[in-house]
Amino acid sequence: MINKIDASTRVRQFDVAPGSALGIDVKTGEHVRVVNSYGGQVVDTWAFNASDAAEYLSMEHSRSATYRLLFRPGDQLVSNRFRPIVALAADTSPGIHDTLHAACSAASYRFYGEDDAHPNCEDNLCGVMRERGYDLSVIPCPWNLFEHAPVDSQGGLSDEPSAAKPGDYVELQARMDIVLVCSACPSTVGKISGAEPRGALVEVHP
Amino acid sequence: MINKIDASTRVRQFDVAPGSALGIDVKTGEHVRVVNSYGGQVVDTWAFNASDAAEYLSMEHSRSATYRLLFRPGDQLVSNRFRPIVALAADTSPGIHDTLHAACSAASYRFYGEDDAHPNCEDNLCGVMRERGYDLSVIPCPWNLFEHAPVDSQGGLSDEPSAAKPGDYVELQARMDIVLVCSACPSTVGKISGAEPRGALVEVHP
Repeated sequence: MINKIDASTRVRQFDVAPGSALGIDVKTGEHVRVVNSYGGQVVDTWAFNASDAAEYLSMEHSRSATYRLLFRPGDQLVSNRFRPIVALAADTSPGIHDTLHAACSAASYRFYGEDDAHPNCEDNLCGVMRERGYDLSVIPCPWNLFEHAPVDSQGGLSDEPSAAKPGDYVELQARMDIVLVCSACPSTVGKISGAEPRGALVEVHP
Repeated sequence: MINKIDASTRVRQFDVAPGSALGIDVKTGEHVRVVNSYGGQVVDTWAFNASDAAEYLSMEHSRSATYRLLFRPGDQLVSNRFRPIVALAADTSPGIHDTLHAACSAASYRFYGEDDAHPNCEDNLCGVMRERGYDLSVIPCPWNLFEHAPVDSQGGLSDEPSAAKPGDYVELQARMDIVLVCSACPSTVGKISGAEPRGALVEVHP
């Protein structure tokens, strides 16, 4: 699954093709950069405890832990057991990473009146985890990196194209051994990834 | 579990004692009122498909379906499979029902430095569902009825005491046969239920 490893720095690089997902093992203390290689790509992201997939990065628990809708560098994000799971170490993007929306799924495409044979982040996640022997019964709310879902003063949500520029990245530090899953969102609903999904890059820095 | 049934209207009434929870069977089309009997009480609320508890009212899916942070009368809320599960039929309260925060739990009380032997909504939910033969492996994000968690212009969250007055209610209509679980939140963190939890009332209107 490693596309490239730098001999001197030992940085492992993984390409995430448009509309597809990758699962990556990250050890406690390692830093991971999710890089918006081409700009404008929403990346649905999940983190699971590598030894127990029933524990995972939880958006609602992390909002309750940080008292923030959008997390900032320095924030410690927590699992559904309120334990530190990843820290947001750095962010070169405009810093807008939605925590509110469900992953796209066959059911969501049906709901919005689109073709449900469309690839989707929920199936991408389930496929990655199934290859690792986990049959997920519940899909945690993803952390939608680079997704711009503004909230107006009346609590209304809207969709804006991602403001991430080519090369922008979010850097996470694992606070436990995790499986990180990144899906280069294939959705065209709301044009959240601009005209079309373009893929991303994940780098693990030891 | 029914505390009282009105002979003429056939309305079933259930008292929810402070800090405790109830599970109530609600059939498709029935209306349920969650009544803030004494005012100021946050009521963590969940709804599960009565024939498959792996399908439940989902805050993230309902935000994606309604494009709203706070739901309004007329909104159709959906399950984690994007299917209608409850409609918000009426609301006599100020209309602020948080969708962002995790349920309080032994882990949350530890996280906030409080006594983890404190009663909590997560254990309340698990207890109610265990009595019905369901061993929940994952706790859905609750719909925190009457909880006032304002979002500022920078995305920061804060706690305000519930603005619900005595007798205010939220009325839901079941869109499938459900088990509705209501927990009169025992939390004193942030004084979200004012000085202390006081309990609530649930009425099922056939």
